[in-house]
Amino acid sequence: MSEVNLSGMTALSIGRGVTLNNASELEAALRHIGATRYHNHHPFHKLLHSGKLNKGQVQAWALNRYYYQSTIPLKDAMVMTRFRDRATRLEWRHRIEDHDGDVGTEGGIERWIKLTEGLGLDTAYVESTEGILPATRFAVEAYVHFCRDRSPLEAIASSLTELFAPSIHEERISGMLEHYSFVNNDTMSYFKRRLTQAPRDANFALHYVREHATTPEQRAAVCNALIFKTNVLWVQLDALYHAYVEGHIPPGAFVPKEG
Amino acid sequence: MSEVNLSGMTALSIGRGVTLNNASELEAALRHIGATRYHNHHPFHKLLHSGKLNKGQVQAWALNRYYYQSTIPLKDAMVMTRFRDRATRLEWRHRIEDHDGDVGTEGGIERWIKLTEGLGLDTAYVESTEGILPATRFAVEAYVHFCRDRSPLEAIASSLTELFAPSIHEERISGMLEHYSFVNNDTMSYFKRRLTQAPRDANFALHYVREHATTPEQRAAVCNALIFKTNVLWVQLDALYHAYVEGHIPPGAFVPKEG
Repeated sequence: MSEVNLSGMTALSIGRGVTLNNASELEAALRHIGATRYHNHHPFHKLLHSGKLNKGQVQAWALNRYYYQSTIPLKDAMVMTRFRDRATRLEWRHRIEDHDGDVGTEGGIERWIKLTEGLGLDTAYVESTEGILPATRFAVEAYVHFCRDRSPLEAIASSLTELFAPSIHEERISGMLEHYSFVNNDTMSYFKRRLTQAPRDANFALHYVREHATTPEQRAAVCNALIFKTNVLWVQLDALYHAYVEGHIPPGAFVPKEG
Repeated sequence: MSEVNLSGMTALSIGRGVTLNNASELEAALRHIGATRYHNHHPFHKLLHSGKLNKGQVQAWALNRYYYQSTIPLKDAMVMTRFRDRATRLEWRHRIEDHDGDVGTEGGIERWIKLTEGLGLDTAYVESTEGILPATRFAVEAYVHFCRDRSPLEAIASSLTELFAPSIHEERISGMLEHYSFVNNDTMSYFKRRLTQAPRDANFALHYVREHATTPEQRAAVCNALIFKTNVLWVQLDALYHAYVEGHIPPGAFVPKEG
């Protein structure tokens, strides 16, 4: 695999003076971004997966993350609005099916509700999203707006965090089942299912950007879209850590009853 | 002035079961939201105004806040896109003039650059916004999107935090001049100017919502727009506190050289 130097990467972009000359250098850059910016490196996940959080903190995570999960089909529908090409819409549509399920069959959002119910959260409260952290809302909505406002290529590229999802899901399943009495195989079913769904989606998106980013400028835009998306995920965990680990819960947000 | 009970206020809204029956109850609710949710209550501001921050922390605040300041004219232009009514556009236009100035006359954004320059920050770096916290970007962009996506009434209502700005600016000017050797009257000129600009703007917006919110539903929407806006400001300070007071600077964001 090609080597690329991304030492000038900022919070926003791969920085000036980086030229990605081909698909192989693009993929190397994307994997470097994942290896350094994906939220598996965030301290909140280390606490979550190693059993260091109490039930109230895990509730806060699941409650806030529900807003992200339940927004994904809106985001994917937004991506579909960018493509007149029927084949791309057909490929993308199954992502919505994965999250929404179908009449009589559950999808990812229902599996997430199994988790929040298993954690003892009231489903009406979870679905109201009235108690989530404002930072969660802003970050998640930024993802939908990004897919509307940027190029179709960038909209697809922003999904590339899924390249790095299976490892964190495996770590999460084993870590949470091992350490928390209040989760079980049934409540963790969302992550189990994503182990097979995410790689298919990620492979399509990676193939797509390798194929369609044909200039250094487009390859940089693809990398910056992935950096944007890692920020969407990182900001959500920073907000959870600040509110529920360091104890600065903003006005009106969920206050755990169980320590 | 009317009394209203907003004890059911959430992170997102004034909550269920609140009925605001007239303009006086609306104004009472708005003032209650300001008194409980405005960012003058945030611990970061208490540190900033009492001289408890070091120069690097004040630099981080000014650098991030630049993104907010420089986005305000875009936000105000977005508000203008919502009004076919010429008189409202004329009234709103002066807000853009306040921030952008005119050929040969400085505006609020230039005054903010005086502050960041006075703090020793490189203007090209400040203007690039490459080093700001991702949470700052998401919160500020949420404000622009809100003014595009919600009703014209809510777009105007989201500016109502200016009702509460003069007191925090006075506190900031005196507190920062007293406690920090690295600020002076010239670098603080932005806030001095806002002492006269903000009240005019706030009075127009307050009069507008009192006049145009004619149903309990519209009055609730006005209150929720102000809650949204207080969240936009609060999230920015939470992110600064987490990164630069508690020391969790996210990847690629500004790292102060001066303690």
